[in-house]
This record gives sequence, structure tokens and C-alpha cells, in this order.
Amino acid sequence: MKIGFIGLGRMGTGMAAHLQGAGQDLTVFNRSAERVAPLTAQGAKAAQTLADLAHATVVFTMLADDRAVREVVLGPDGLLRQLAPGAVHVSCSTISVALSAELAQAHEAAAQDYVAAPVFGRPDAAAAGKLFLLAAGKPVVIGRLRPLFDAIGQRTFVVATQADKANLVKLSGNFLIAAVIESLGEAMALVEKGGIDRHQYLELLTSTLFDVPLYKNYGALIANRQFTPPGFGAPLGQKDIRLLLTAADSLQVPLPFASILRDRFLALAAQGGEPRDWSAIGAMAALDAGLAPTAHS
Amino acid sequence: MKIGFIGLGRMGTGMAAHLQGAGQDLTVFNRSAERVAPLTAQGAKAAQTLADLAHATVVFTMLADDRAVREVVLGPDGLLRQLAPGAVHVSCSTISVALSAELAQAHEAAAQDYVAAPVFGRPDAAAAGKLFLLAAGKPVVIGRLRPLFDAIGQRTFVVATQADKANLVKLSGNFLIAAVIESLGEAMALVEKGGIDRHQYLELLTSTLFDVPLYKNYGALIANRQFTPPGFGAPLGQKDIRLLLTAADSLQVPLPFASILRDRFLALAAQGGEPRDWSAIGAMAALDAGLAPTAHS
Amino acid sequence: MKIGFIGLGRMGTGMAAHLQGAGQDLTVFNRSAERVAPLTAQGAKAAQTLADLAHATVVFTMLADDRAVREVVLGPDGLLRQLAPGAVHVSCSTISVALSAELAQAHEAAAQDYVAAPVFGRPDAAAAGKLFLLAAGKPVVIGRLRPLFDAIGQRTFVVATQADKANLVKLSGNFLIAAVIESLGEAMALVEKGGIDRHQYLELLTSTLFDVPLYKNYGALIANRQFTPPGFGAPLGQKDIRLLLTAADSLQVPLPFASILRDRFLALAAQGGEPRDWSAIGAMAALDAGLAPTAHS
Amino acid sequence: MKIGFIGLGRMGTGMAAHLQGAGQDLTVFNRSAERVAPLTAQGAKAAQTLADLAHATVVFTMLADDRAVREVVLGPDGLLRQLAPGAVHVSCSTISVALSAELAQAHEAAAQDYVAAPVFGRPDAAAAGKLFLLAAGKPVVIGRLRPLFDAIGQRTFVVATQADKANLVKLSGNFLIAAVIESLGEAMALVEKGGIDRHQYLELLTSTLFDVPLYKNYGALIANRQFTPPGFGAPLGQKDIRLLLTAADSLQVPLPFASILRDRFLALAAQGGEPRDWSAIGAMAALDAGLAPTAHS
Repeated sequence: MKIGFIGLGRMGTGMAAHLQGAGQDLTVFNRSAERVAPLTAQGAKAAQTLADLAHATVVFTMLADDRAVREVVLGPDGLLRQLAPGAVHVSCSTISVALSAELAQAHEAAAQDYVAAPVFGRPDAAAAGKLFLLAAGKPVVIGRLRPLFDAIGQRTFVVATQADKANLVKLSGNFLIAAVIESLGEAMALVEKGGIDRHQYLELLTSTLFDVPLYKNYGALIANRQFTPPGFGAPLGQKDIRLLLTAADSLQVPLPFASILRDRFLALAAQGGEPRDWSAIGAMAALDAGLAPTAHS
Repeated sequence: MKIGFIGLGRMGTGMAAHLQGAGQDLTVFNRSAERVAPLTAQGAKAAQTLADLAHATVVFTMLADDRAVREVVLGPDGLLRQLAPGAVHVSCSTISVALSAELAQAHEAAAQDYVAAPVFGRPDAAAAGKLFLLAAGKPVVIGRLRPLFDAIGQRTFVVATQADKANLVKLSGNFLIAAVIESLGEAMALVEKGGIDRHQYLELLTSTLFDVPLYKNYGALIANRQFTPPGFGAPLGQKDIRLLLTAADSLQVPLPFASILRDRFLALAAQGGEPRDWSAIGAMAALDAGLAPTAHS
Repeated sequence: MKIGFIGLGRMGTGMAAHLQGAGQDLTVFNRSAERVAPLTAQGAKAAQTLADLAHATVVFTMLADDRAVREVVLGPDGLLRQLAPGAVHVSCSTISVALSAELAQAHEAAAQDYVAAPVFGRPDAAAAGKLFLLAAGKPVVIGRLRPLFDAIGQRTFVVATQADKANLVKLSGNFLIAAVIESLGEAMALVEKGGIDRHQYLELLTSTLFDVPLYKNYGALIANRQFTPPGFGAPLGQKDIRLLLTAADSLQVPLPFASILRDRFLALAAQGGEPRDWSAIGAMAALDAGLAPTAHS
Repeated sequence: MKIGFIGLGRMGTGMAAHLQGAGQDLTVFNRSAERVAPLTAQGAKAAQTLADLAHATVVFTMLADDRAVREVVLGPDGLLRQLAPGAVHVSCSTISVALSAELAQAHEAAAQDYVAAPVFGRPDAAAAGKLFLLAAGKPVVIGRLRPLFDAIGQRTFVVATQADKANLVKLSGNFLIAAVIESLGEAMALVEKGGIDRHQYLELLTSTLFDVPLYKNYGALIANRQFTPPGFGAPLGQKDIRLLLTAADSLQVPLPFASILRDRFLALAAQGGEPRDWSAIGAMAALDAGLAPTAHS
């Protein structure tokens, strides 16, 4: 198969490298060219424009947000116009449920296939080929993509035949992670103000009921107040809670925890926190409680 | 050592059995006598009144709430009056930070020792000797208690020298668990209304980022709407969130997630949910969203 | 001046009638024709298409939501294309801050003027010419519109020269009203469950600190559980809180009360409440508390 | 009637002066003597101890909180022991529903009468005899107290025969006021960040839908950031929300707005705000939004 890959950010670079490593005929495209060189050094071809992906059978997109995906796919001379009938667009970006539904419709109208395949995992997991993929689309198309998914991730979950459901599941997963961050932030603020060392406290938690990397990793970031450089930036986390709440609005589902997370991200941004990791919302309960957020207090 | 044990509920029975199994000279006391027989059958003695514990070196209490502990310890002819100087009261109940501080003071005034040692774990862990203990008190006293703690649990964390800090940590742990229940409840309500099967969704979550018994067990209770018989009753969970918020009030720590949990437990109780497991709050997001909570929908 | 008026709903009908009554040369347009007759009976002309408004100097729009305004103004053959350079579009609808900004830009590009003039008041106030107008736009243009505003309302507040600020103020006003509804709902649920008659309670409140129509009128709707027919429908209230939160998101302002209102409207809609007045969220605290919402309990 | 009055704070001084002015035989008691002189100068007698009130037919208490009332009434040599059978204790303090119920029971056991009569109004209203009284107790006893109530306030509402219901209503009233403060704070933060002057905004609100002293007065405090000296201190407001939530907990009524107010008062206290007026919570939304709270920004 001729494979195209659009979006060589920290996630996309790892994913594309694993496709290349699996012996695929890979052509990559990125807005800024310097991200392309490491992949061409491994044998991938470089597309100068989206038109260079016109002969691809399968094109992955891994972009930052709705705006970027909309421009690349639906814009003039966008992917939708380049792809041949029968080609597949695999959208791995964390985008809105509504845009994913719109893409599905647009590709169907163009006699192309569309699969949503957002992922769980941070850049280190992408680099290691250890992502989890949440795929939704026509079963026969997903069946054909299996070898590619296996190259990228450690496991693929087929969520539904309707593509946008994968995006809903992905957003709900990021909500669950953000809820872990906030709850750890609140618990740590409480015990710290009660005189307990927060590092010792985290060790206790993650040696007992919360013995899982998610709590260990985010707990350490919060306990260490180590929010830069960001692994996953606050604006991205904020965007995902926004998309979650928009989806919940459409589906008429009140989500009180998600509303609190929304306000945390807004306050963080309003107070200058946008350059930080999204786990920085985990320090806000301490701030509210009058605890100064020093690096190693 | 002569050991006393007061409170043979579902937790206390398992804990006392392990102390007995470890070869201690154990005398047990329970308000209702039928819970005593299994332990006397294993060789423990039965106290008829608290006065029968007067010669004990160490007395454990594992009772339901502040009211019960206050009555047993501080009431007329209570434990405080029975114990000899130098004896130790080990309080394992999940009680308020304020009562724990009051007990510490009362025992000190009576030349007795006091250690708070609340536990993480449900009745099956108590029966298996697999609890985690969170101990706080004088280090030398805790040192002497080590063999007893090792009989009861798989690991003991020494939290602080000031006893009530162990109670604060315990309450914060139950808060974190309740936050897991609520966040799972919200996420499941959302994806279910979006057309995803909640059992399949839980399988996805717990195979990936949330691969830990806490999420698996509570997630299954919520997905199955299986809230009776209660493993840990809703009124107990509600009590713990109430005690957490009271401690947070004293320490001046705003806890927005905890406030939401408070309202969930109030609504659950107001709508007849008190006979259920505390994980029943995990079905309330679905109720709010207009999803009928049927057994296997 | 030749005046056009688009949107003869319950609000627009009253407003247009007052313009006609003030001796203006009025042409009205409405999607469904039966709303037009009462105004033509008073002397107004009826436009068959938007093109019939091409010669108007000033055109008011009073439409349900962003979608309607976007279609009427920015759609093919929409108002933007019909109006002559120098004509003024006065937008009275409660629309998003973002759409208002977009309209300002579009009209400016067409050498037309744009004034946002959303109103406070329900249909009875519109019929009585007692609305309050919140106007924003170029001072000289607002100056020319004064006689028209005076015909429609009892007072006009000039909020800013940037039009979309009037929409922000309008949305904040509806938020404040919704907060009154929710707080009355909570207080009534509490005292009612405490054994106090809610009608007697409302009489007490509105005879003392809350002696103002807003509390009297909404309080009566809540106390009487009288939510149909709707004076201002729940979906409109929900829309306004949604627009408020979107504006707050752009401005980075966390609004915890608004988030709660959002969830109330979602729960109301999810449970079938869309045909009710927006004050129906004032009965939800009672529902949560297990009080059956009967008509005169 | 021989009248006693205990508690000459800013509220009690005005109330006692009006009783004295109405020609009653008044004896006053206050912990610190300097507050007594102005009243003895008008002809009141000064009690040195509570025993000096033993011959009173009616004794009012107007004290800061539960602790103070409990000590004065239920303490050794407290009012309960001093009063003769048939005497009436009129409790005007804002205390917990539970303490009011306990006082009712204690006085009944002592063959004394008890009426709860908390008030709406700030010190200026007390000084002007313009308070509103919320009375609950036996109708025949309240009937006898009417002339005294008329001396103190502009109107008395008889809430119930069960005394503690008056306390519930009083707490709910303070909740409604706090909700006004918070909602104004949120709305002002939003429009201010949107570029609207908050004083002009307040003028608009209180000239239209919110034309009532409550919104004018609290709105001005918030717009002016004028929180010292406190008219009603933040710790008192915090106490009332705490008592409200405790009552709501007993009655099983979830109150989401009240939970947010609780967190606001906690954050205010944690950040040093206790010396301020309780309306200082109305500036916290602006703080969260990154707006510096300067005196006249």
C-alpha cells in the first residue's frame, strides 16, 4: 500500500516512523519542513504539497485541532480533493465529534473511506509503538488497516462502525485523565495543608489503591510542581474538555466534574498558565487553599 | 501481649481473626453477641463488658462512625476508664479528624497511648489479611505494634506522629475513590448516550490507561448497575465525604470535586438509595441524562 | 425614515407595532405570513422577500437564534446583499458575541452600519413599549436611531461603541436572571423539605429583601410549578447560557454558577422539559431532594 | 414586662435601644461593659451577671454564633438556670437549626417558653427599628411578644410553631443574598474582561431588572472593591453557609449553588480575606479571571 502521513508533531513523528519501519511505502507531509528530514533519512518520501499524496491508498492525519484538520482536509486543494475514490483517510487527531461526523459524510460523498482512529498515549508511547488505537469505521476497511494499526500501536480497539464514536470515546478518556489530575490536586492540597508531605503521600497512594502509571506519573508532576516543558500542553487539555462539553451538550448529558475541569483550565489560562503541561490544573486547589506553589515545598 | 478487639463488623471480624491466628492472647467485644462465636471457636475469649478488657495491653477499635467510637471510648464505663496507664488504644475506624485529636488528648491525659490506624481495603481484604494500614502516633509505640499490624495487613504506612493525620489521609483516600466512581459514572453516561455499550467501554478503559482493580471493580458495579447488597454502604461513603469536607473546612481548603460528591450522596439518599453500595452515585449521571437505570441495559 | 422589521415572533410583533404606532414608514417581513396581518391592518407594508427591504434606511432583526440571524443576514440574497450603502442593520436578537462581531465586520465591509440593540423584557413589555434596550455601535448612528428606540422601549442604555459588547451585556443579564431562578429553587426546596409552605415563604422573601418583580414573578412560577405554556422557553434559556459560556471561554473567565445552570438546562432537556418555561430549572433542586413536583403541593 | 437583653453587638445595641425607647423595663447584659453605657444612659439597667436577669419575663439574646449562645444559655449558671418557669427566651441570633431545636427542648423541660426570632437587616436597620423578624414558636407566646417585636422591627413574619424553622428560613435568606453577591461577581468579571466598565454596568442592571437595594448596595461594594470595614464579616457569612449546608445535609437537599459559595468563603479565608465584608467573595470571579482587584480599576 502507498501510505501518506500528514502531521509530524511529537505524536505523528513516532507513528510515521513505525509505519516506515514496517516496510510501508510512506510519503510524509508537514507544514514546517524541518520535521520531515528524520523520516526521509529513514527512506520515506517527502510530499511538497497535498497533491503529492494523490496516489496514496491510505492517508493518516495527526494534527493539533479541528481548525488544522478542517484546513488540511476540507480546504481548497485539500486532502478530500486529492484522494482517489476508494482511498482511505485515517484521522488520528483528537477532534470534535461533530467534525468527525462531517468528515465521514464528506468522504462518503467523494466515494472515499474514512476511519477515525484517535489514540491513547503520550509522545514516548508513540515513539515506542505502544499507543492504543480507538478505531471506528466500516469493519472491512478497518480490517484492511490492521497491519498499519499494529505497526503503530500495541492494541487496537474497534469501537463502532460510526466513525465519530471513536472521537467521543477518546474525549471521554481525556476527561477521565483530567479528573484524576484534579482529584489528586485536591487531595494533595488537603493533606499538605494538614501537614503531610505530598511526595510521601503520593508514594502511599501509588503503593496501594492507585498502583498504576497514570496516578504515578501525573501525581509526580503535581507533587513536583513540574509543569514545564509541557508533555501535553494546557491549551490542548482545555480544548479536549471543551470538545467533550460540546459533545455532552449535543447528547444532553450533564457532567458536573467536567464543568469544574472547564473552569480550572479557564482560570489557569487567565492566570498565564498556557505554556504549562495540562497537569498544572492539579496545583490550583493548592493555590485556592493559600499554599504557595513553589518548586519543592 | 494481651490484645482486646472491639467491633466485629465485616471489617473487624477479619482483622481480629488474623490477630488470633498470629497467636495473640485475644479478647473480643461486640455489641451483638452472635458475631463473637466464630472467634471464640478459634480460641479468642469473649468480653461481656468493656471492663473485661481492663487488663489488655493493646485494644483495637473498629467501629462504624464517630458516635459509636465516642460512646465506646469516652462514654461512662468506656474504654478510657477501663484501660491501665501505659496501655494503647489503636483506633482503626474511619472517624473524623477532630474526634481522633480529641481521643489523642483524652488518652494522653489518662497516661495511655493512642495510635490511629485506619485501613484501606474492603471486607475481602480484611479476611485475607491484605489490608493497608495508615498509622500515626508515637514512633516507639507504633514500633511495638508492628507485629500486630503485620498480622492484619500487607503493609503499614507510618503517616505522622500526630495521630489525627492518619485519619485525614484515610478520608482523602476515600475521596479519591469516590472521585473515580463519579468520573466513571459521567464518562459512561456520555458514551452510553452516544451509542457505545458501557461494558465494552469499561473493557477498553481497563485494558489501557486504567488497568487497575479500583477501576475494574467499581467500573463493573456501575456498568452492571449492581448496587445491592452493598459492599460499602452509601451512608458510610456519605459520612466519609462529610468528614472530609469538615476537615477541609477547618483547614480552609476548597474542594470542588468533593462538593459535587456531597451533592451526589445527598440526592442518592433523598431518592431512596441508602440501602445501596456507595458506587450507586456512579449511576446518577446517567439518571440526570435521562437514561433509565435498568439492570442490564 | 423607511424602516424594515424582520421577525414577528412574540417579541418582534410588539416592537414593530410600536414603530408603526410612532408614524414610521414600516415594512415587515416574517417567514410565516400569518404573523404579518395584524401589522398590515395597522398600516404597515408586507415584504414578500428580503429584496423588498432594499430601500429601507434602517432594518431591525428580532430572530430566535444565531442560525436564523445568520441565514437572514448572511445567506444568499440575505439582508447584507439587499441593503444599500449607508443603511443600518439594528440587531435586537439575543445572539452570540462572536456572530455579532462577524455581522459588524460584514456590514462595515459593505459600507453599511450595524448596531446591536438586544433588549431586556418579556413579550408583555414588548407589547407595552416598556422594553429596556442595550445599544452598542457608532454614537452618531445610535443618535439617529434614538426616536426609534424611544418608540420601542422605556429606556436605552448605550453600552459601548463596539457592537458585540451589547450582546455580552445582554447574555450576562439572562445569566443573572437564571441565577435568581436557581437560587430560589434551591432555597424553596430546602425550606419546603423543612416543613415550610413555599408560597408563604415566597411572600416573606418578596415582602422583605427581595421586593422586586423579578423575584415575585419567577418565584410564583416556581412555587406554583406553573411552567407551561412557556413565557420564555427552556431551549432559549439553555441557548443563552451556552452563548454566555462560549463568550466566557473566549474571554477566559471561569463562571461556576453558570456551569451549574448549564447542567440544570441539560438535565431538564434530557428529562423531557424542553416544552416548559426556562424557570422550570427552579424545580430541579426539589426533584433532586426527592420532593415530588406536584402542582399545588 | 421586665425585659432582659443579652448581646450588645452592632445589631443588639439598636434592638435594645428600641425596646428601651418603647418604655419597657429593660435590663441589659454584655460580656464587655463598655457597650452597656449608652443604654444605661437612656435608662436601662445593667446586669452584672446572668443571675441579674432572673426576674425577667422575657429575655432576648442576640449573639454571634452557636458557641456564644450555647455558653450563655446552656452553660453553668446560664440563662436556662436563671429564668423562672413561664419566662420566655427570645433567640434572635443566626444560629444552627439543630441548636435552636435543642434550646426549644431545654426550655420546655424547664417549663419555660422559647421563641426563635432571627432578623433580616444590617446594623443600620437595627438602629432604625426597621428590621424584619422571622418568628417561630407557640402562637400564644408570640402573641404576647407582639409589642416588643413591633418596637424592634418594621414587620414580623410568623413562620411556624416549631421554633427551629425560623432559623432555617433565616439561613436560607442569607444564602439567597450570598447567591446575589456571587452572581453579580461573576457577571461583573465577565463584562469587565469584555471591556465594559463595571460601575456603568451596575447602573444599567439596577435601573432595569434589578432595581432593589440588595443589588444596588452589594453591587456597589463589589464594583468599588470596598470590603473594609466589614458591615457583615466574611467569617459570619461563611458560618451561615456552613449552617445552611449542615441543615441541608440533615434534610437531604443537594444545593449546588451553596456548595460553590462554601468554596468561595474557604478560598477567601485561606487567602487572608477574613477581615473583609462577606461581599468580598464577589471579587473572586475577577481574581480567577486574572483581573487584578484594584480599588478603582
